[in-house]
Amino acid sequence: MSDRWTTLSADTVVKDRWIDLRAESCLTPAGREISPYYVLSYPDWVNVVAITPDEHVLLIRQYRHAAGQVFWELPGGALEPSDVDPIDAARRELEEETGYRAERIEFITTLYPNPASHTNRLHTCLAINASPVGTQQLEAGEEGLTVHKVPLSELVDKLRSGLLGQALHTSSLLMALLVSGRIHVSEAPVIAPQRASDK
Amino acid sequence: MSDRWTTLSADTVVKDRWIDLRAESCLTPAGREISPYYVLSYPDWVNVVAITPDEHVLLIRQYRHAAGQVFWELPGGALEPSDVDPIDAARRELEEETGYRAERIEFITTLYPNPASHTNRLHTCLAINASPVGTQQLEAGEEGLTVHKVPLSELVDKLRSGLLGQALHTSSLLMALLVSGRIHVSEAPVIAPQRASDK
Repeated sequence: MSDRWTTLSADTVVKDRWIDLRAESCLTPAGREISPYYVLSYPDWVNVVAITPDEHVLLIRQYRHAAGQVFWELPGGALEPSDVDPIDAARRELEEETGYRAERIEFITTLYPNPASHTNRLHTCLAINASPVGTQQLEAGEEGLTVHKVPLSELVDKLRSGLLGQALHTSSLLMALLVSGRIHVSEAPVIAPQRASDK
Repeated sequence: MSDRWTTLSADTVVKDRWIDLRAESCLTPAGREISPYYVLSYPDWVNVVAITPDEHVLLIRQYRHAAGQVFWELPGGALEPSDVDPIDAARRELEEETGYRAERIEFITTLYPNPASHTNRLHTCLAINASPVGTQQLEAGEEGLTVHKVPLSELVDKLRSGLLGQALHTSSLLMALLVSGRIHVSEAPVIAPQRASDK
């Protein structure tokens, strides 16, 4: 038996710049009707983990209104219809937001931010040997965005003490470090230290 | 000068079970009006990284409708008004979704899933020495949720090859392993292997 719900009907609630919300009437495989079930459609997004030749990671700082605070983030942005793949978007967004261009960009992973209610996917790319080539070309709503370099050697400690307040950026950064072989599993289990005394 | 936008007005677009969407009229510090700016309010959430005495991590599998697929996830759920802190929610959600209870639950981190447009925060807790004590008490919409154990020693390799399709769960799991000292950063830079040949 399939796990999939059947969508019996779908009505647009609001569709505007930055939002596309529909209310669906769904039927579960067990025959239960769930209505309305709200689904948000967003374009796919790419986050860029950009490493400079001197082993720093590029971060930006930007105001985020729903939280009412400025956050440290990775550069990134939405994919456009003209993008063949996430690497195209990564190259463009890195250059627009930071003025940096990378020698090489590698795809790391694709994840869903919230597959229960949001249709979009988050791609992560690793940009290697990123160097400044120009100036920022910021979009409307990005005023005040600033670019920063953090030594890669300090980044994990900074993550541990809460540098990035954003879960999706934390995920991209740690997955890029993991997939590129930069972080490893400890050999000894240290999660349950009290168990050592059991021996 | 403050970075904060001023909210001039806010109108509810839709408020129902699972959704609370408002359209705000905002003024940036530079004096530009952004209207409508859509803000989604959700309750705070907790993800639980639960480790068994034999060093396995508890995962669940669940259908997620916006993506139309079944996902591997961490146990977790929304905070309730009666929860004093995320640990209360972690304890309840772990037991309801998996039938497991932990000897000890530790707070790991709080992150925003999407602070631009979503008000909610995601807490992560580490549940140590989790053992089965009862049966699942699933809520409506959780039919078909199954519980699984994955050896901690295999988990990072499985993450690298895409076991978790969800960015927020990836973030919680890696942050819990990082904060609890279970993963560490390589001493040698391996992100830009071509640089070795420069020497």
